[in-house]
Amino acid sequence: MGSLDTTPAAYSAFGDEAGSFQPLNPEDVRSYLHKAVDFISDYYKSVESLPVLPDVKPGYLQCELQAAPPASSAPFDVAMKELRAAIVPGMTHWASPNFFAFFPSTNSAAAIAGDLIASAMNTVGFTWQANPAATEMEVLALDWLAQLLRLPASFMNRTAAGRGTGGGVILGTTSEAMLVTLVAARDAALRRSGSEGVSGLPRLAVYAADQTHSTFFKACRLAGFDPANIRSIPTGPETDYALDPSKLLEIMQADVDAGLVPTYICATVGTTSSNAVDPVGAIADVAAVFNAWVHVDAAYAGSACICPEFRHHLAGVERVDSISMSPHKWLMTCLDCTCLWVRDTHRLTDSLETNPEYLKNDASESGIVTDLKDMQVGVGRRFRGLKLWMVMRTYGAAKLQEHIRSDVAMAKMFEDNVRSDDRFEVVVPRNFALVCFRIKPSRGMTEEDADEANRELMERLNRTGKAYLAHTVVGGKFVLRLAVGSSLQEERHVRSAWELIKKTTAEIKGEVDTE
Amino acid sequence: MGSLDTTPAAYSAFGDEAGSFQPLNPEDVRSYLHKAVDFISDYYKSVESLPVLPDVKPGYLQCELQAAPPASSAPFDVAMKELRAAIVPGMTHWASPNFFAFFPSTNSAAAIAGDLIASAMNTVGFTWQANPAATEMEVLALDWLAQLLRLPASFMNRTAAGRGTGGGVILGTTSEAMLVTLVAARDAALRRSGSEGVSGLPRLAVYAADQTHSTFFKACRLAGFDPANIRSIPTGPETDYALDPSKLLEIMQADVDAGLVPTYICATVGTTSSNAVDPVGAIADVAAVFNAWVHVDAAYAGSACICPEFRHHLAGVERVDSISMSPHKWLMTCLDCTCLWVRDTHRLTDSLETNPEYLKNDASESGIVTDLKDMQVGVGRRFRGLKLWMVMRTYGAAKLQEHIRSDVAMAKMFEDNVRSDDRFEVVVPRNFALVCFRIKPSRGMTEEDADEANRELMERLNRTGKAYLAHTVVGGKFVLRLAVGSSLQEERHVRSAWELIKKTTAEIKGEVDTE
Repeated sequence: MGSLDTTPAAYSAFGDEAGSFQPLNPEDVRSYLHKAVDFISDYYKSVESLPVLPDVKPGYLQCELQAAPPASSAPFDVAMKELRAAIVPGMTHWASPNFFAFFPSTNSAAAIAGDLIASAMNTVGFTWQANPAATEMEVLALDWLAQLLRLPASFMNRTAAGRGTGGGVILGTTSEAMLVTLVAARDAALRRSGSEGVSGLPRLAVYAADQTHSTFFKACRLAGFDPANIRSIPTGPETDYALDPSKLLEIMQADVDAGLVPTYICATVGTTSSNAVDPVGAIADVAAVFNAWVHVDAAYAGSACICPEFRHHLAGVERVDSISMSPHKWLMTCLDCTCLWVRDTHRLTDSLETNPEYLKNDASESGIVTDLKDMQVGVGRRFRGLKLWMVMRTYGAAKLQEHIRSDVAMAKMFEDNVRSDDRFEVVVPRNFALVCFRIKPSRGMTEEDADEANRELMERLNRTGKAYLAHTVVGGKFVLRLAVGSSLQEERHVRSAWELIKKTTAEIKGEVDTE
Repeated sequence: MGSLDTTPAAYSAFGDEAGSFQPLNPEDVRSYLHKAVDFISDYYKSVESLPVLPDVKPGYLQCELQAAPPASSAPFDVAMKELRAAIVPGMTHWASPNFFAFFPSTNSAAAIAGDLIASAMNTVGFTWQANPAATEMEVLALDWLAQLLRLPASFMNRTAAGRGTGGGVILGTTSEAMLVTLVAARDAALRRSGSEGVSGLPRLAVYAADQTHSTFFKACRLAGFDPANIRSIPTGPETDYALDPSKLLEIMQADVDAGLVPTYICATVGTTSSNAVDPVGAIADVAAVFNAWVHVDAAYAGSACICPEFRHHLAGVERVDSISMSPHKWLMTCLDCTCLWVRDTHRLTDSLETNPEYLKNDASESGIVTDLKDMQVGVGRRFRGLKLWMVMRTYGAAKLQEHIRSDVAMAKMFEDNVRSDDRFEVVVPRNFALVCFRIKPSRGMTEEDADEANRELMERLNRTGKAYLAHTVVGGKFVLRLAVGSSLQEERHVRSAWELIKKTTAEIKGEVDTE
């Protein structure tokens, strides 16, 4: 390939077949989907025994599969065979019960079934009229989840009953939730400051702890904030790496004194690195001084807040402007599903509304319906509300809480194991189901040696294929992260991981001692 | 609800159940998915007879379903029963063969099966290491599709074989493709102009025809371009509503003369309103004068360009910077699936790359792998490459071409019907499978009367539930859009729609005549 021969003759390689083609032929739909269900069933049974992290080299797949698209059709079995032979062996198995890296992507039978139906209906609810049921199902699912999370009524969707004053939307990622709220806050700040166009943009400033996910800092750049005014506020062990509100106040005040306009603060409940929890209420109080937007990113730990014993991590949320959390992380709803609630939907739609002729309709013009396209980046959207609703409808609050508690109990068990072995240390307090630990520097070991030993431990563990852990750096130290929660995980998998960690550590220490 | 009582007692409504909960219990997975497959099978059989556009009032769903999330679990059948009873009756059925609105969201058995497997694997390939197979499958699917589209080698992904110099990524929507390329172009222009931070932003200007999708103008605002410098260039019947390159040149030159920096041009191949085709090559030539980025939005019509007889609409694409098209629109791949190719991936990753400690790994640091998170807004991502690959692997180029041609032939048949009836007119030439037509103003009718008659026609058609058409305004005239392509559509559905249109028009005209 690579030539630009676009004459009809150049297409001859792609052949031609006779006959009428029905892409949704009923027999094909049934047969392909049953094959897929069988595959999934087998996959879940066998995934425990597959290496979590594959042993493949970059570019491996192009050696397995043909480089050019096929000219003619093939039985669906061919694709399924290549899936098993070429794709599965190169997968990092997020569904494996031996997956402890990053945050898990949890899942459930109800979510997969809901997502399947959404794929088949293939509806695009950009306006209410384009799909009333999909729009209202999303609104309902968000209101249900808001109730489970005990969010204030101000975050509930507007409904005919007039229950709430705010609203929500299901997006693909937390990054999109950050981006749309950043843009809303940016535009409001520009309006307030009386800037013409974007001339005031270089004066706007945004704030977050240095432990905030990198995607926040990227979202700020996407929205056009000046890199020089994107503040990454240092944290330390004295706050367990959470944002210190007094430091925030000081920095915001200094910015105001320098002529800047504090515009937006991102508070994280459960940072990716170490599950630090920024104090939401105290941050909201600081923000109020400057009229800045506060967004709470509870992507992972938000799910835990459906349990009363974790809800205090959201204390003060009634004073923030927006909050997002991702059921695809810890609420058994497969990707993608990020819920965003805002206290005043007009603040979003003022920046995000579009009204092209071909989408105009009476319902939208009545102003009493929600057009979800006006709360997101794009226009098109999957019917994501269905799977989230099916999860809550089928499992109910009790099972969802049980699931969170079971994961936390397993993480606590692992934490206790680590604490009981004096070769190791837990580096930050465990808040949820993530344990940050490391091999402690023993006598004669420098901090660099300890970092090296821990890196070696992680690499050896991951090479076994029997566990996959990720790392972070906290307070300058290389730290291993063990995140419990993969949906097939049971206590025995966490126990095995601990045995493997002990054995591998002994090997590393033995080698060091005999060197 | 609405109170902020977050004490444990407040949760008592959500009960507690005993027993160990396995969200991916093998029997549940099989049983729920089989129920979903049965539902889909029934749905496809019955959807033809359901009203395409439902007769429901805003807020209807909250009267059907409970307002609070359930405390305890329920059999999956309960959710399925409520789906059938409450959700289906409120759906706009995009899968109906009587759906002719917007652009269709096409689908196929292979795509749904691939998407189902992706939901079950629930993997998150943000970096190559986080899922080598998912990353390489996406790269391969994009390279295959690039070959079907006869894109130049410069848009192919970098591979170990070093075939191409560019690359691609699968995103959720065209809007995201526009946003990430706008940001890349913005940052490059700021660097070139030597601006500090974003101080040069108010000088950057972007361009598109007034027929460009509204989401482009929204993406420009998201990226921080000054609303005053977002040029919507008027088009008219003399170019069939396509962008006139000489007008573009004139406007860009005037902007340069006024001290602005032309940064980005969006050319559309197949506008949403009327399927106008902006001349890609001529626009690229104008852009070259000013060193501006050219993006081609071929969201809908790009799929047709896998057929040699339509490929000329992309002529000149080898001189643009990026192109996106959405297989979820017309290549039988269910939502969401938007393919973006760029000529130089570094121009994207320079703006979008992040490198947090917890994602660092040897493969990324080697620089020879693609980390797809660096070509999109967010970090998380579904395994979208699988369904797209399965579609191409199973149907092959021949069936995909046949599918496009069959849709176009049906649209041509409808167009011929309209042309043969002197009560109607085709308003713009039909380029693909969209026919823009209207009731012609007859003797004594003003243009306003004609608009009113056409609006009445659309509303009556849509109220029958037997067809759903959308409208647009072209050249100041209210025009009906009939888009062929819903995946269950056959010739008889298009014929029925035409019969219904004739009958309804006769009624309207009869009423007018007898008034």
